[in-house]
Amino acid sequence: MKTKSFSDMQCSIARTLDHVGSWWSLLIIRDAMMGARRFKHFQRNLGIAKNTLTSRLNDLVAGGILERVPAADGYAHEEYVLTERGRDLAPVIIALGQWGDKWVAHEKGPSTVVTVRESGEPLPRIWPRRADGELLALNEVGMRWANGAGPITETQEKEDPS
Amino acid sequence: MKTKSFSDMQCSIARTLDHVGSWWSLLIIRDAMMGARRFKHFQRNLGIAKNTLTSRLNDLVAGGILERVPAADGYAHEEYVLTERGRDLAPVIIALGQWGDKWVAHEKGPSTVVTVRESGEPLPRIWPRRADGELLALNEVGMRWANGAGPITETQEKEDPS
Repeated sequence: MKTKSFSDMQCSIARTLDHVGSWWSLLIIRDAMMGARRFKHFQRNLGIAKNTLTSRLNDLVAGGILERVPAADGYAHEEYVLTERGRDLAPVIIALGQWGDKWVAHEKGPSTVVTVRESGEPLPRIWPRRADGELLALNEVGMRWANGAGPITETQEKEDPS
Repeated sequence: MKTKSFSDMQCSIARTLDHVGSWWSLLIIRDAMMGARRFKHFQRNLGIAKNTLTSRLNDLVAGGILERVPAADGYAHEEYVLTERGRDLAPVIIALGQWGDKWVAHEKGPSTVVTVRESGEPLPRIWPRRADGELLALNEVGMRWANGAGPITETQEKEDPS
């Protein structure tokens, strides 16, 4: 559980987490990517309490991740579809799933399979690459503080007199 | 806040979230990737309550994401370093940060910059690609239920008689 809002933090990771809302929200986004549009479908698949689901859906709409649209079949209920910024979370969702497939897989196997649609082959691991597509080792990826943030260790303080 | 454990869920995304623990855990992992090793450095950078940090660090050690090692400088305190499975969360952390940079950036700019170390150029967006490195559009990525899970909508029920 969050004990304070991350929205004032400068870090884009913290800001994303604040914006997305909760673990449940990530699973709702996953289900929307899998084709769920209706309250009852999210509810059935997640086994989530209705008031919790209502709250999370409202937050995701307020955050611009989902939007409400009229039902495709003309019925009175509304449906939920991902916005552009919601769809743009696909790398996060897929990366979480690929890590879980590798390290904490369920004994029955994963419940979803992500593929290159054309070939049906499993999607290669989402991983840092150069612009030309060449894979990078993690020690070829640099992470540094910027815009007045950090440093957080004495070593970094000594190296960076600012 | 989670209202039930995700550990029984078959979905690798849910299992990952259960294993990682909380939003705070992801920020602790981020700081470890940035070079933080000591309790006081995590505490200072995150502005997190000490008992919360203790709890999150214990969970991350129990989950095999972090491990405790003797202090590098020979002092009595222990330090925390990422395990192989912890380092393997890099795509998740970087993808969260890149989404935040794009959609919910702080007015002062992002607090961390991720680069291709050799060139110093910003790391290209982590994104689904073919094995040869070619970028995929999201509609070229397939997601389907497997191993007895789903479907969650009537349309999918009709398409899949299982």
